[in-house]
Amino acid sequence: MSYWFDENHTENVKFSIKIKKQLYSEKSKYQEIDILDSYEFGRILVIDGCVMVTEKDEFIYHEMIVHVPMNVNPKIKNVLLIGAGDGGALRELAKYKTVENIDMVEIDEQVVNVAKEYLPTMATSFDDPRLNLFFEDGLKFVRKKENYYDLIIVDSTDPFGPGESLFTKEFYKNCFTALNDEGILTNQHDSIFYSTVDKTLRKSYATLNTIFPNFKLFSANIPTYPSGLWLFGFSSKKFDPIKDFNEEYWKSLNFKTKYYNRNIHKGSFYLPNYVKELIEDV
Amino acid sequence: MSYWFDENHTENVKFSIKIKKQLYSEKSKYQEIDILDSYEFGRILVIDGCVMVTEKDEFIYHEMIVHVPMNVNPKIKNVLLIGAGDGGALRELAKYKTVENIDMVEIDEQVVNVAKEYLPTMATSFDDPRLNLFFEDGLKFVRKKENYYDLIIVDSTDPFGPGESLFTKEFYKNCFTALNDEGILTNQHDSIFYSTVDKTLRKSYATLNTIFPNFKLFSANIPTYPSGLWLFGFSSKKFDPIKDFNEEYWKSLNFKTKYYNRNIHKGSFYLPNYVKELIEDV
Repeated sequence: MSYWFDENHTENVKFSIKIKKQLYSEKSKYQEIDILDSYEFGRILVIDGCVMVTEKDEFIYHEMIVHVPMNVNPKIKNVLLIGAGDGGALRELAKYKTVENIDMVEIDEQVVNVAKEYLPTMATSFDDPRLNLFFEDGLKFVRKKENYYDLIIVDSTDPFGPGESLFTKEFYKNCFTALNDEGILTNQHDSIFYSTVDKTLRKSYATLNTIFPNFKLFSANIPTYPSGLWLFGFSSKKFDPIKDFNEEYWKSLNFKTKYYNRNIHKGSFYLPNYVKELIEDV
Repeated sequence: MSYWFDENHTENVKFSIKIKKQLYSEKSKYQEIDILDSYEFGRILVIDGCVMVTEKDEFIYHEMIVHVPMNVNPKIKNVLLIGAGDGGALRELAKYKTVENIDMVEIDEQVVNVAKEYLPTMATSFDDPRLNLFFEDGLKFVRKKENYYDLIIVDSTDPFGPGESLFTKEFYKNCFTALNDEGILTNQHDSIFYSTVDKTLRKSYATLNTIFPNFKLFSANIPTYPSGLWLFGFSSKKFDPIKDFNEEYWKSLNFKTKYYNRNIHKGSFYLPNYVKELIEDV
């Protein structure tokens, strides 16, 4: 049997992965969740028909969304993780012994249950004693906090469906309030090579740029994501992600990473002109 | 009618593009050449079933393979272009008024003819008076030259089929001889995320690293190429691509580019750990 999973990157572009077996498929209260076992990428978490993470390349996304902010301010102790149900970002974050508290807010408990059962290389840290896991809407959760977190990481789905509210002005404003004076917000920002989510993202950059004194986009090459060029936002009240990058601290940690390193930290903020122009336009 | 062009990135991964119309399809003496008109990427040059260039993202490849070496040594006057039949690299190179001679060696005349007729945004410079166009095997052509070129750009197909000889030790040694003391060799180096061409490339890195005093890989995100993370080799007798990068010169040129800029020049040499390890292993 030849069994392929197709993802439409746009209505005119498809990415297809040969599948060994569908391991799980359920509709949760919020979304359709699938676990597929593939020849090339190992196990894949698919939500509403879109690849969320694959065992083969998830390290890129998770290393970048965590290590970039963590090495700009080594004093980060109190972290809020929004989304991130697969556990990959938590795994990277839990490596920092200096982190004292992790509040994780995932809207869909089913994603965490599925990750625990089917994605053991990602869901390594759900029993970390520093973790407080909440199954709530991130938008609502963040409203209750003020001057509290050192870092908020938004590891959400795309800017449509359940993740949509995590790209709004209201949400970003509440994040600003929930962060302390040294606070950093890192969020996944999709790709802009294809125009499908272009408008939402441009608005999102403009909003973050207005709310935070420092806002910069950084990128990583993630082969299974549309166009391969994935963007993340770095927003901060105080820190510049390049000038304040603490190379000595990163060196002292001696972490084994497969993507992130001190040059990648800097280089990820060096964007192609066509991406820069999209941001400057807003 | 729903008409899709599929490219196998590996036997277990497919990239598919919705096609408006097949504009051209012929088997030349060397290879199968197709021009497809697509909804997302405009016109696409396909050789032996693999996407060579698309109108939408060709600027990335061509800017990177030309502007990176050209801005390390502003004195480059005499250039050899191997392959490059679509004309995109020639278009970028022709922008430099300081270049006095361009020898271009494309094995397959049919590729140039097709580019002239179907890819007008790439084939802009075939009537440049500095151009000498040879339809020969690059491997043989380069044997005849000694201490002659300032720059050799190898814009070849993948390391199998007609392009195979352009990844060999013999070819690289002849390039070294054909270059003068300030000579630079830039060549396309495929992707290493998927393992299909892994061995050939590792060997290729090792060979270049042995022959040239300075060898470094650089990368660019090219959405239509397998994995999106494309590699290029920078080999030189004298120059370091970062230390000797002449930012002032690039600024003075005032070229309008869509991908390349001064930060991208540097950042493109900052490679993820998993890529660095592949090179260090050899």
